[in-house]
Amino acid sequence: MNFSEELKKRTEEIEGILERYLPREEGFQRTVLEAMNYSVRAGGKRLRPMLMAESYRLFGGSGPVVEPFMAAMEMIHTYSLVHDDLPAMDNDEYRRGRKTTHVAYGEAMGILAGDALLNYAYETALTAFDTAPGNAGIPRALKILARKAGIWGMVGGQSVDVESEGQPLSREKLDFIYSLKTGALIEASMMIGAVLAGASEEDVQRIGQVASDVGLAFQIQDDILDVTSTVEVLGKPIHSDEKNNKTTYVTLEGLEKASQDVEEISARALRTLGSTGRENTFLEELIRYLISREK
Amino acid sequence: MNFSEELKKRTEEIEGILERYLPREEGFQRTVLEAMNYSVRAGGKRLRPMLMAESYRLFGGSGPVVEPFMAAMEMIHTYSLVHDDLPAMDNDEYRRGRKTTHVAYGEAMGILAGDALLNYAYETALTAFDTAPGNAGIPRALKILARKAGIWGMVGGQSVDVESEGQPLSREKLDFIYSLKTGALIEASMMIGAVLAGASEEDVQRIGQVASDVGLAFQIQDDILDVTSTVEVLGKPIHSDEKNNKTTYVTLEGLEKASQDVEEISARALRTLGSTGRENTFLEELIRYLISREK
Repeated sequence: MNFSEELKKRTEEIEGILERYLPREEGFQRTVLEAMNYSVRAGGKRLRPMLMAESYRLFGGSGPVVEPFMAAMEMIHTYSLVHDDLPAMDNDEYRRGRKTTHVAYGEAMGILAGDALLNYAYETALTAFDTAPGNAGIPRALKILARKAGIWGMVGGQSVDVESEGQPLSREKLDFIYSLKTGALIEASMMIGAVLAGASEEDVQRIGQVASDVGLAFQIQDDILDVTSTVEVLGKPIHSDEKNNKTTYVTLEGLEKASQDVEEISARALRTLGSTGRENTFLEELIRYLISREK
Repeated sequence: MNFSEELKKRTEEIEGILERYLPREEGFQRTVLEAMNYSVRAGGKRLRPMLMAESYRLFGGSGPVVEPFMAAMEMIHTYSLVHDDLPAMDNDEYRRGRKTTHVAYGEAMGILAGDALLNYAYETALTAFDTAPGNAGIPRALKILARKAGIWGMVGGQSVDVESEGQPLSREKLDFIYSLKTGALIEASMMIGAVLAGASEEDVQRIGQVASDVGLAFQIQDDILDVTSTVEVLGKPIHSDEKNNKTTYVTLEGLEKASQDVEEISARALRTLGSTGRENTFLEELIRYLISREK
């Protein structure tokens, strides 16, 4: 199998896992359950659960304990998109060609579906105690999830991003936003995979470094594509950062340096990955793909 | 000390615990941290952490393992109020005489502060693993928290309440909303207290029954006060249910039966409490107070 076939196969496996953890749409509260599932089923790269699964595999993990965490991670990512799309936030009516959740179900239900997904992420992750009662890494994995999703992670980055809207950003603040808003969940994904596989503390820190670089390179590549791609390839509006007067890595550093930095950062990620002495060829290819991707 | 002195003292102890668990307002993300703390510091009866602490005490619990859960529970209750007050939900500008969070900090920050509080509740509760590494009840307590706060608990009740707005409700649906929207967190509070104290499964179920009745009686008393109290005593608008065409226990059953039922339900709660064979005089007085309260 070549990389893109392998990528497709593993994405499908993740879709299967997600489906198994979505709630059944029943009872008086059926609408909020439908809105949750609608949001998760809108698709996407499933990058975070995939990185979690590959990091788990890298450190010799096997068995299903990682699966509730994979589902939980995607639920947290999804809730952040649902709330991000709300009228008071980015006010987006479409995402990936489908109506956003609050457009499909009303604004109140959009808020509640996001809340429900965040809470259900924890409810789901906590089932790991039943899946693998003997896995001593579960409390640590839960703590990483909570820390990286919250005020010292994604929500912290979101709130600075929201507050900074329409203002020019320093490189320091931009780095902070990228590191928390995009980076934190990617770090959490790879660290949780490692922790559940029983990796050493040193390796958990190393894989956190890899993830931090992957997240940063991924985000810079996003900024680059917004300038260099076409609507047809990207499947969403281009030059949107310029239109919104948004400070990005490209506006601060220029296109050339941004492209160089993506190369360097991802090369560093691969070196750090190598320093674990472990091999996962698909993970290496995935990291290369993420920064050379055209959409 | 009489009951009201004791109540005051225990409320102050809880305020102290909450303060210790609130995040420091620092870093680029200071605003969302301020908004979170502003929301929690708005006050209230602190009923849920108090019931948790008293249930913990009832079953012989001692030591601080319950404290992160008490703080987490109040954060979850608070986030639900912050999101409930949003323009797309109840659109309330004041709560307990202070501006609501989204009025004070803007709507986007109101959404994010609510998200942050929900997530931080889990981050906080998870510190129990460090507070008391040997307490085998922690995973179960976390599961109860997540289940009762989510789609099978509070958020489920909220979403049915939102969807039913302006429509007449059947008694069945009203019971469902009361049981989930108000009851679930009270049940979780008392069950978590019992679980952390190492109560038997039978006693955990019993205390869940007590809590379910306490929640229901508390909610019916709310409906009664909306009809019988005055603005001065209640400190908030009266006859608001009638104005909003809201089906309540009183509109369905009448004032007389509602008052009788409150008495009966709370008597049942006290009987079930007695069936544990344990004594906590303050908890008994607290339950009596909650249903005879005038505001």
